[in-house]
Amino acid sequence: EFAKIDHHRQLRTGFPEVIWGPGKTPEQIAQIMKAMRQHYPVVMATRIESEVAEDLEELVPGLIYYPVARICALKTGTLKINATGIISILTAGTADIPVAEEAAITGELCGFEVKRLWDVGVAGIHRLLSHRHLISHADVLIVVAGMEGALPSVVAGMADCPVIAVPTSIGYGVSFGGVAPLLTMLNSCATGIGVVNIDNGFGAAILAGQILRSAEKLAKKING
Amino acid sequence: EFAKIDHHRQLRTGFPEVIWGPGKTPEQIAQIMKAMRQHYPVVMATRIESEVAEDLEELVPGLIYYPVARICALKTGTLKINATGIISILTAGTADIPVAEEAAITGELCGFEVKRLWDVGVAGIHRLLSHRHLISHADVLIVVAGMEGALPSVVAGMADCPVIAVPTSIGYGVSFGGVAPLLTMLNSCATGIGVVNIDNGFGAAILAGQILRSAEKLAKKING
Amino acid sequence: EFAKIDHHRQLRTGFPEVIWGPGKTPEQIAQIMKAMRQHYPVVMATRIESEVAEDLEELVPGLIYYPVARICALKTGTLKINATGIISILTAGTADIPVAEEAAITGELCGFEVKRLWDVGVAGIHRLLSHRHLISHADVLIVVAGMEGALPSVVAGMADCPVIAVPTSIGYGVSFGGVAPLLTMLNSCATGIGVVNIDNGFGAAILAGQILRSAEKLAKKING
Amino acid sequence: EFAKIDHHRQLRTGFPEVIWGPGKTPEQIAQIMKAMRQHYPVVMATRIESEVAEDLEELVPGLIYYPVARICALKTGTLKINATGIISILTAGTADIPVAEEAAITGELCGFEVKRLWDVGVAGIHRLLSHRHLISHADVLIVVAGMEGALPSVVAGMADCPVIAVPTSIGYGVSFGGVAPLLTMLNSCATGIGVVNIDNGFGAAILAGQILRSAEKLAKKING
Amino acid sequence: EFAKIDHHRQLRTGFPEVIWGPGKTPEQIAQIMKAMRQHYPVVMATRIESEVAEDLEELVPGLIYYPVARICALKTGTLKINATGIISILTAGTADIPVAEEAAITGELCGFEVKRLWDVGVAGIHRLLSHRHLISHADVLIVVAGMEGALPSVVAGMADCPVIAVPTSIGYGVSFGGVAPLLTMLNSCATGIGVVNIDNGFGAAILAGQILRSAEKLAKKING
Amino acid sequence: EFAKIDHHRQLRTGFPEVIWGPGKTPEQIAQIMKAMRQHYPVVMATRIESEVAEDLEELVPGLIYYPVARICALKTGTLKINATGIISILTAGTADIPVAEEAAITGELCGFEVKRLWDVGVAGIHRLLSHRHLISHADVLIVVAGMEGALPSVVAGMADCPVIAVPTSIGYGVSFGGVAPLLTMLNSCATGIGVVNIDNGFGAAILAGQILRSAEKLAKKING
Amino acid sequence: EFAKIDHHRQLRTGFPEVIWGPGKTPEQIAQIMKAMRQHYPVVMATRIESEVAEDLEELVPGLIYYPVARICALKTGTLKINATGIISILTAGTADIPVAEEAAITGELCGFEVKRLWDVGVAGIHRLLSHRHLISHADVLIVVAGMEGALPSVVAGMADCPVIAVPTSIGYGVSFGGVAPLLTMLNSCATGIGVVNIDNGFGAAILAGQILRSAEKLAKKING
Amino acid sequence: EFAKIDHHRQLRTGFPEVIWGPGKTPEQIAQIMKAMRQHYPVVMATRIESEVAEDLEELVPGLIYYPVARICALKTGTLKINATGIISILTAGTADIPVAEEAAITGELCGFEVKRLWDVGVAGIHRLLSHRHLISHADVLIVVAGMEGALPSVVAGMADCPVIAVPTSIGYGVSFGGVAPLLTMLNSCATGIGVVNIDNGFGAAILAGQILRSAEKLAKKING
Ligand SMILES: Nc1ncnc2c1ncn2[C@@H]1O[C@H](COP(=O)(O)O)[C@@H](O)[C@H]1O
Ligand SMILES: Nc1ncnc2c1ncn2[C@@H]1O[C@H](COP(=O)(O)O)[C@@H](O)[C@H]1O
Ligand SMILES: Nc1ncnc2c1ncn2[C@@H]1O[C@H](COP(=O)(O)O)[C@@H](O)[C@H]1O
Ligand SMILES: Nc1ncnc2c1ncn2[C@@H]1O[C@H](COP(=O)(O)O)[C@@H](O)[C@H]1O
Ligand SMILES: [Mg+2]
Ligand SMILES: [Mg+2]
Ligand SMILES: [Mg+2]
Ligand SMILES: [Mg+2]
Ligand SMILES: [Mg+2]
Ligand SMILES: [Mg+2]
Ligand SMILES: [Mg+2]
Ligand SMILES: [Mg+2]
Repeated sequence: EFAKIDHHRQLRTGFPEVIWGPGKTPEQIAQIMKAMRQHYPVVMATRIESEVAEDLEELVPGLIYYPVARICALKTGTLKINATGIISILTAGTADIPVAEEAAITGELCGFEVKRLWDVGVAGIHRLLSHRHLISHADVLIVVAGMEGALPSVVAGMADCPVIAVPTSIGYGVSFGGVAPLLTMLNSCATGIGVVNIDNGFGAAILAGQILRSAEKLAKKING
Repeated sequence: EFAKIDHHRQLRTGFPEVIWGPGKTPEQIAQIMKAMRQHYPVVMATRIESEVAEDLEELVPGLIYYPVARICALKTGTLKINATGIISILTAGTADIPVAEEAAITGELCGFEVKRLWDVGVAGIHRLLSHRHLISHADVLIVVAGMEGALPSVVAGMADCPVIAVPTSIGYGVSFGGVAPLLTMLNSCATGIGVVNIDNGFGAAILAGQILRSAEKLAKKING
Repeated sequence: EFAKIDHHRQLRTGFPEVIWGPGKTPEQIAQIMKAMRQHYPVVMATRIESEVAEDLEELVPGLIYYPVARICALKTGTLKINATGIISILTAGTADIPVAEEAAITGELCGFEVKRLWDVGVAGIHRLLSHRHLISHADVLIVVAGMEGALPSVVAGMADCPVIAVPTSIGYGVSFGGVAPLLTMLNSCATGIGVVNIDNGFGAAILAGQILRSAEKLAKKING
Repeated sequence: EFAKIDHHRQLRTGFPEVIWGPGKTPEQIAQIMKAMRQHYPVVMATRIESEVAEDLEELVPGLIYYPVARICALKTGTLKINATGIISILTAGTADIPVAEEAAITGELCGFEVKRLWDVGVAGIHRLLSHRHLISHADVLIVVAGMEGALPSVVAGMADCPVIAVPTSIGYGVSFGGVAPLLTMLNSCATGIGVVNIDNGFGAAILAGQILRSAEKLAKKING
Repeated sequence: EFAKIDHHRQLRTGFPEVIWGPGKTPEQIAQIMKAMRQHYPVVMATRIESEVAEDLEELVPGLIYYPVARICALKTGTLKINATGIISILTAGTADIPVAEEAAITGELCGFEVKRLWDVGVAGIHRLLSHRHLISHADVLIVVAGMEGALPSVVAGMADCPVIAVPTSIGYGVSFGGVAPLLTMLNSCATGIGVVNIDNGFGAAILAGQILRSAEKLAKKING
Repeated sequence: EFAKIDHHRQLRTGFPEVIWGPGKTPEQIAQIMKAMRQHYPVVMATRIESEVAEDLEELVPGLIYYPVARICALKTGTLKINATGIISILTAGTADIPVAEEAAITGELCGFEVKRLWDVGVAGIHRLLSHRHLISHADVLIVVAGMEGALPSVVAGMADCPVIAVPTSIGYGVSFGGVAPLLTMLNSCATGIGVVNIDNGFGAAILAGQILRSAEKLAKKING
Repeated sequence: EFAKIDHHRQLRTGFPEVIWGPGKTPEQIAQIMKAMRQHYPVVMATRIESEVAEDLEELVPGLIYYPVARICALKTGTLKINATGIISILTAGTADIPVAEEAAITGELCGFEVKRLWDVGVAGIHRLLSHRHLISHADVLIVVAGMEGALPSVVAGMADCPVIAVPTSIGYGVSFGGVAPLLTMLNSCATGIGVVNIDNGFGAAILAGQILRSAEKLAKKING
Repeated sequence: EFAKIDHHRQLRTGFPEVIWGPGKTPEQIAQIMKAMRQHYPVVMATRIESEVAEDLEELVPGLIYYPVARICALKTGTLKINATGIISILTAGTADIPVAEEAAITGELCGFEVKRLWDVGVAGIHRLLSHRHLISHADVLIVVAGMEGALPSVVAGMADCPVIAVPTSIGYGVSFGGVAPLLTMLNSCATGIGVVNIDNGFGAAILAGQILRSAEKLAKKING
């Protein structure tokens, strides 16, 4: 048996398992999606290139493909994530959008409201400052940046909520496929930043969701 | 003027500026602490080695030193952080405790309740499993590990809340001063993990606090 | 002469030379296989992509190709490896299967019995714990993992036998093509682990075989 | 509580937990050793510098210190490791001896017979060839080498048993504190080699011991 | 002869040779300074630790030591640098001041006017914005930053002149002794930035000076 | 909205925003170019491969493509850069020309005069020395080199103006895609060198232009 | 002018300039070859892939292509290299042959006699020892090895002449494209080894030739 | 026995074994020196810090210490190296002299004549050009350089003999302890260069000696 699906993951952690596409054949992905559809109203696979998506669309009826986010989904209902609050997502540049969309679509498929603000990098800081209100009133922020990855430092210095920093592989030369912005984010002199792997929009969205779920649980405790 | 203290930081981000010790003379640290004490009921400096702390104790009356956490503090009241919820902190080994204590003391100085669980690394997984309840009922988790840094992956697979992973420089050979556990944490196949810099217990605590504050704000909205 | 076949290797080390495919033309591989078939009942070549295998099938009559393992073999009898005992192989994820199959097929071609347990990574630790018996009763374990590569640490803490850890190049971003799980395995806080190169399923199988052969020789001495 | 001793480790894995010295205070090490002495006839701590050993000798009566191996031990009996066979240890140079002694003393404290062969590096290959018999008749080999770390490749090509390769931090310039010999060993064109972390003599000995224990178990199975 | 002083350097490049201290004995430095004093009104040596400076003060009468900048100088007149314009220097934090002072003192010893603006890092962006006028009216800017090194990107997006970025070794963990801010600066999405080696305040000042000298030459051309 | 064009950049920094091609679809690039053409007499996009340029030529009437420099431009007038002076560009080898042309075309599109001197690398130092006059009379120099990248060191030792060093990805083996010449340039023992990212001809040209603009502004002050 | 051919190089250094293919268009290579053919009886270009060679064969009549060595040459006579002695070339494996052939063809085109010994790697050390005579009587040795690159250490311990070590990019995982064998060779505990860049067969041959030319010059001096 | 002295090394390779000091106790070094003195007229140990040398001077009567080169020697006669010819050694800077002296003293102790030319780095290229005659008439050249390590490229373009390049750990920031100049030397666009490990003056001298010995042997053949 090539896969042991972790059917209890949502029970334990709030979110169901999500299929990671690379290194799996379309047949394997299709088989896992079909098995999971028995248990979950929403089933997702990430990192699906368009050719693989075409194969999957034939194997899995009802499949939806999000080409910019490179996500495939089966949706027969809504996940009961038990959370309120909005996930706000920023990018430094236009080229960072696919990673940000991976986060956005993941968030939306999990049932969250998502706000998008693209291309507000620090080279023209007024672009960011003119959205100061969005930042200082956010519930949780995902900040996506390639090249030198300086955006999360500036945002975290303005934000009154947790910031999830996502380095992207956008850049060249000594960006080293995203290592440079990753280091920038880990070394940030601003606080309140949690970092995820390069291009890991998916992981950022789940962490953001996990943060918003905390609120719901706390609300219940406070409320008694 | 060698320092421009950011007196609005708590207003903007919920937490006041904290002094980073290395590269500053004791005189500079003392002067900044004294200036900040005018504005804040709690003033902190991190990464203070014991010799520096001795100098500081002479320069700054009323200073408290936490030797394991290497933190100095001036405490004349309590920070108004506006959050409830508990920060639970785990370490993989005994040698990771100083970094975990940096997180714990930071959290406590900011007004949070902190739970400590030391030496539950994955080589004897039963040690972790026997604290399953603590993990699955936590509000937010900080997981501190050196060497191979595998603990956050296992914990995040069991936890129903955000996990903050802190790699430590504990190890030798190809641990590369903490780079190995950092990579482990960034590459985790578990989700809901935000990573901070090597040995950055302080940053982990602020991020945990930020998560609890965000939850609190939302919980208030939910509860009306 | 482009190759000096080491015909004494089985005499010296217990295992015959195995052909490493990359950087050789199909003609060179075919010629070496034919030369070796004179001396050995089983001849193997590893890292053979499917196109090369097609060329080889024309050049070498009787060739068998294992596409997942990317191994070609000529089999006219059985190798006299002088060992009993079983090689148990685990993977963390589905995408690690090709490397694990390289190990499994190598082991089987050498005459060993192989047990396979796929997709028991640490993010859902119960999957692993439910096979606790297999692990604690194994003769020798090969543990194959990509991404953060944490599985061998957990397994070695449960196993009463040597563990061979194989990092895979499965992952992205800071997995650096398998360097991250390699570091994890070398830094393991668990003991009894020997590590091989990234994606080196073949080498893991030979080391496992060597361990079982050594045991066999000693067992004979013990049993008189 | 700063340490959760894993008292079941010998039951699960054959070997008791061993204390890793760095990052622990002498008081912590002493307290753990005393706690473990209740359960085990042999208690070990590794990576103990001579000044720490002096402190420990005062805190823990009966302590033995091995200065070259940097190991402290309490010995009130013999570990029941259930293994026969000899661990043979080679070094490439004189400067590699401390790491090799860490392996040797660990092996001896666990109850194994150890053979030592120092300074047989490949620059004078006749030194190695003149001990061909020791190599080809070994039960398990530990090969310790710094600088370019070529010795395990040559030894594994001559040996009829598993080879455990230990890179050392001996060298300068681009030896990068042992990374160069580590890479050499992982890339070896010889087979049957398992690699451990830089300077990890201790880990090599436990793996060697684990291999020899396999034999004992197998002997029992074969014998019925 | 241990040194071949390049007495023509000022003729060729506008600036005389400056002695790099590390790796030279105090006697060697003293001898070179004395030889150069015959030809130049200002002689400088950089990277002089305080103990070396004490030795030098005995060997070279009239020596001035700048302890924060770690520069020693002999000054019997003024260098004819033929330049006007001001060098404005910014730091991100207090701990970056020594590198910035190396630049400032170098600039002043060469005869330039220097403006200093310390501790205006991006985590509190208002600190920078409140000095917007200084930045947008500068002739040439040197921006000194450690940790994530984001300051030059923001400054270059506001400045109407060349920006020289100097990464510092201030930081910890994955700042890698200044490599992280160096990468940030080289990958900047802002333009008009030239980068120098980590902690190279000296080099930044000479480059700034070279830029201001260009103006002087151009002025002469334009003026006819 | 996928792009927030920074229409004030020329006002703030002297140069308008330039579109970075990679990671954008041709449609996105076309739309940005058309929007910018309303405001600027010259609009540029860099890193445009020939296939993308073909698409763009259909989408954007009047587009000019420079295939060696990989730049697309729309030109309806001249940028008011307010600078005189010449940008002199050198390459070490023939293979470095595309990067140098990126600099040259950028400079020319911005309105500067550009001098080109190709293939004067240090292995035949007489080639460089025979152009000594060009170097010692330059206003600003851009030096482009791959492989070992030694040329800027030699040039800066001969030049009476700022030197901008551009490492290229030309080379193999341990050139590491341009990291080796980058390190060479950052470690230069010559002074007056500012370094830009690998293959960043564009950035070098803007920095050169910024230097000449600064000079122009000062020259005006000097000349009254 | 895209190339400044260094027509004096043979006068200065004994060997004419050789064209490095990558990054040049076929037209550029052809033009340089034709220009050089006026001055030299042998003109060479290295790193020429077969498709480029096909283009060149049309552009340059009389061109010879060596496909394994990837060298193109024009040969109208013999170079006057003024050297005797033989270049002996060894490889560790079959896959290293292309790099070794680059060295061999370069040597032969320069007029040297070349001896080839392929596939004598250290995993079967008897293969090497059986050619002990060739090694101990060589004039100069080129040793080509990938993977762990241990061969030069063993050879240099047996040889009475200079050894030139050439790492190759043959390998996988942590061979890092040849960095691992490069480090091995630089860290060798054997002496008398000079190392060249990864896959640099050409450079090794020129260095070998330079060594043999020394002999000729010395012979003349000795002889008076 | 802690050392197996390779008494045949001079027979096989022309040079006796030399003791590498680091990682050996003074007692071990003394014992090896005394054992070797029975067989060789000259015995050397390298990398001996002054405190170790003081210990050795007491243990080994007649010992000579070269403090700059950090070499200890016992000299009761002359080595029969069978070579004429001169080793010419250049350094780029004053701080590189200790490494160059390691080469020089090694060469002289082996019986070679050595020419020294210090501080002729490329930032003032006229210093090098004024010694053009020494370079173009050398028998073999050792070029020692730290920082950017550009000197060997320029020298090899002027020299009519083999060039041995020695990177030094002199530098800071991204010189990475000598890795930067090492890369420069390996990537050199000049030919005829063999590279040794960082700071390996000793190895450079033996390679130079090996080159001169090879020449001598060939010269004898040529001269009949
Ligand atoms: N884009 C992604 N990045 C990181 N992890 C992912 C991604 N998509 C899915 N995963 C995780 O990968 C695991 C599934 O791996 P597998 O068993 O190989 O399908 C689950 O634990 C998911 O949470
Ligand atoms: N020298 C050593 N190298 C690597 N691991 C060790 C060493 N000594 C002890 N250990 C392991 O370190 C763990 C103990 O860590 P700690 O809980 O910090 O004492 C145990 O799992 C030991 O097996
Ligand atoms: N070839 C290039 N290299 C580096 N930066 C560039 C290049 N071309 C454009 N840019 C910069 O990239 C930014 C535009 O990025 P984007 O918003 O993604 O178009 C601008 O700030 C430009 O100054
Ligand atoms: N400074 C040095 N750098 C590199 N190798 C050296 C040096 N000094 C001695 N050696 C070599 O190190 C080996 C001796 O190592 P050992 O057996 O540890 O004394 C001999 O093969 C010498 O050729
Ligand atoms: Mg943009
Ligand atoms: Mg423990
Ligand atoms: Mg799975
Ligand atoms: Mg030795
Ligand atoms: Mg500050
Ligand atoms: Mg050229
Ligand atoms: Mg072979
Ligand atoms: Mg000098």
